Amino acid sequence: MASVQLKGRRPGDYGFHQEYRTRWSDNDMYDHMNNSVYSFLFDSIINAYLIEHCGLRPPTSPQIGLVVNSHCDYFGSVGFPMTIDLGLRINKLGKSSVAYEVGVFEQGKDDVRAVGGYTHVFVEREKNRPAANGMSDEIRRGLERLLRDGTPKL
Amino acid sequence: MASVQLKGRRPGDYGFHQEYRTRWSDNDMYDHMNNSVYSFLFDSIINAYLIEHCGLRPPTSPQIGLVVNSHCDYFGSVGFPMTIDLGLRINKLGKSSVAYEVGVFEQGKDDVRAVGGYTHVFVEREKNRPAANGMSDEIRRGLERLLRDGTPKL
Amino acid sequence: MASVQLKGRRPGDYGFHQEYRTRWSDNDMYDHMNNSVYSFLFDSIINAYLIEHCGLRPPTSPQIGLVVNSHCDYFGSVGFPMTIDLGLRINKLGKSSVAYEVGVFEQGKDDVRAVGGYTHVFVEREKNRPAANGMSDEIRRGLERLLRDGTPKL
Amino acid sequence: MASVQLKGRRPGDYGFHQEYRTRWSDNDMYDHMNNSVYSFLFDSIINAYLIEHCGLRPPTSPQIGLVVNSHCDYFGSVGFPMTIDLGLRINKLGKSSVAYEVGVFEQGKDDVRAVGGYTHVFVEREKNRPAANGMSDEIRRGLERLLRDGTPKL
Repeated sequence: MASVQLKGRRPGDYGFHQEYRTRWSDNDMYDHMNNSVYSFLFDSIINAYLIEHCGLRPPTSPQIGLVVNSHCDYFGSVGFPMTIDLGLRINKLGKSSVAYEVGVFEQGKDDVRAVGGYTHVFVEREKNRPAANGMSDEIRRGLERLLRDGTPKL
Repeated sequence: MASVQLKGRRPGDYGFHQEYRTRWSDNDMYDHMNNSVYSFLFDSIINAYLIEHCGLRPPTSPQIGLVVNSHCDYFGSVGFPMTIDLGLRINKLGKSSVAYEVGVFEQGKDDVRAVGGYTHVFVEREKNRPAANGMSDEIRRGLERLLRDGTPKL
Repeated sequence: MASVQLKGRRPGDYGFHQEYRTRWSDNDMYDHMNNSVYSFLFDSIINAYLIEHCGLRPPTSPQIGLVVNSHCDYFGSVGFPMTIDLGLRINKLGKSSVAYEVGVFEQGKDDVRAVGGYTHVFVEREKNRPAANGMSDEIRRGLERLLRDGTPKL
Repeated sequence: MASVQLKGRRPGDYGFHQEYRTRWSDNDMYDHMNNSVYSFLFDSIINAYLIEHCGLRPPTSPQIGLVVNSHCDYFGSVGFPMTIDLGLRINKLGKSSVAYEVGVFEQGKDDVRAVGGYTHVFVEREKNRPAANGMSDEIRRGLERLLRDGTPKL
C-alpha cells in the first residue's frame, strides 16, 4: 500500500492493541526512538497475539513463524518517556503465511507515527519447512478471527 | 546490603513504581529475560523519575547524571510476555551523588525477582565534572522527596 | 527490486564492507539472530560510512539523516557467535535523499543471508526540514563516490 | 576489589580477548555507550569463551550458567564508532560457580574504561538446580585453564 495511504491510518483500523512504555535506551543520539526499535515492538505485539490467541508456545511449539520480509514507513517521531499504543491487523492470510501490519501511535493520540510489519511463514520447527497442510488449525483460527472481524472483541 | 536481605524486598519497600511490558527480544536463548535487560529497565525508571520529579530535560540539561557503578542480584526469572512492576528507592544521597535501588517484580506478585541499581554522579554537562556546589537544587529536592518519604504519594 | 533477484547478491556487489561480531543477546528464543537486530546493523554501517566518508559528526552536524522507510528480505539465518560481513551500496541518490542497500553475509561465505536497507532524507537539524539546496556538498560527494564506483577503493 | 584498584587494570591482566565493533544504537542521548550495553558485551565474551573452550552448546547443553549477581565500575566512556577490546579473567572458581571479570578497553589503548562481570552458577538445565557433583568436567577444565594460566595462549 502506498505510503500516502498508510499515513491516514487511525487506531480504529487495528483490531488488537497493546500499550508499551518506552525505555531510556530506545532513544538514540538524536533524542527520538531509533528506527530499529520499532521492529522490536512489532515483534512483541505479533508474538503476544500468537501466544494469547493462536496457541503459540515458544520456543517449543511444533510450528514457529519465520520472518521472510519486513518493512516500515515513518511519518513522525516517538520517544522516551512516552507510552506507545500499538495496533495490529492482518492484511493477507495464505496457506502457510500471514502478512501483519502494525500501527504506532502515541498513547491517546490519533495521528499515526509509523506503519510497518512483516510476513511470517509458519514452518515445522524440526524441519524448518512449511507443513504439507500449511499452518496448524489453531494458528489459522486465531489469525482468521483478527482478519475477519476487523476490530474483534478480544 | 547482603544478598539475603535484598531477597526479602517487597513492593512496599519502594516509593515510586512503574509498570513495563516486556518485549519479545528481552528473552534470550534460555527463554527468560536476559540479565543485561534489567539494566535497561533500571535506566528507564530512574530517568523517568528524574524527568517527572527532578526537572531533568535530556539531552540538554545543564547537569546530567553519570553512572559510576552498577550492580544487580538475581533471585528468580521474569520474561516475555509478562508485565513487570519496577519499584525505585534511594539508599544514599550525597553532595553530588545518589545511590538508587530498583526492585523487579512480576505484576501483582510480591516476591522480588531481582534487586539492582546504580550510583549517579551529577556533573555539569559542558565540563563533565561535578559542580562546586554539587547537584542542582531542583534535582536535590526531587531526590530528597523520594528518600525522605520512603513511600511518597507521587 | 524483486526478492528473487536480491537473493543473488554477492559480497562483490557492495562497495563498502565492515565486519561485526555478533552478541549473545542478538539471538532470540529460536537460537538465531532476531530479525530486528538486522536493523541495528544497517544503522551501524550506514552511519559509519557517513562519519568516515561524508563528514557527519553526530549529534551536532548541521544536517542529519532521517529514516523515512526501511525494508528487509531474509534468505537464511545468522547468529551468535558468528562474525558477520556487511556490505553497503547506494541504489538511488536524489536532491535530499539517498536509498541505501545492505547485504548480510557470514564472514568468508558468499551466499547472502539478508538484504535490506532504508532511505535517508537529510534535513537541517534545527528545522527538521530539508535544506533548500538539498543535502550538503560534503555529504553528496561522499555518497556519490560509493554510488559511482560500485566498488570504490576506500 | 576496590574501585581504585580496578582502575589500574591493563589489557595484560586478562587472558582471553575479543574485539567488538560498537553499533550506532549503543550510544544513548549523551553520545556515549549506554551503561546497560556493557552487560551485553560481558555476556558475549563470557559465552563465547564457554562455547569455544568449555564445550557449551546453547540452548541444549545439559548444564547452563545462571547469572546470580553482576556489577560494573565505570572509569571512562567509549562509544560508536569505536572498536572495543574486551579482556576476560576468572577471579574465583567454586564447585558449581565461577566469578568472571571483564575489562573494557578502546582498541589499542591501555587505560581501562570499565571493569565489570558476573557470577555464573551452573545448573542442570532440566532441573534448574546445581548438579550434585557441581559443574561438568568439560566446563571446569576450560575455566581452570583461564584461571591457572593468567594469560593463557588461546
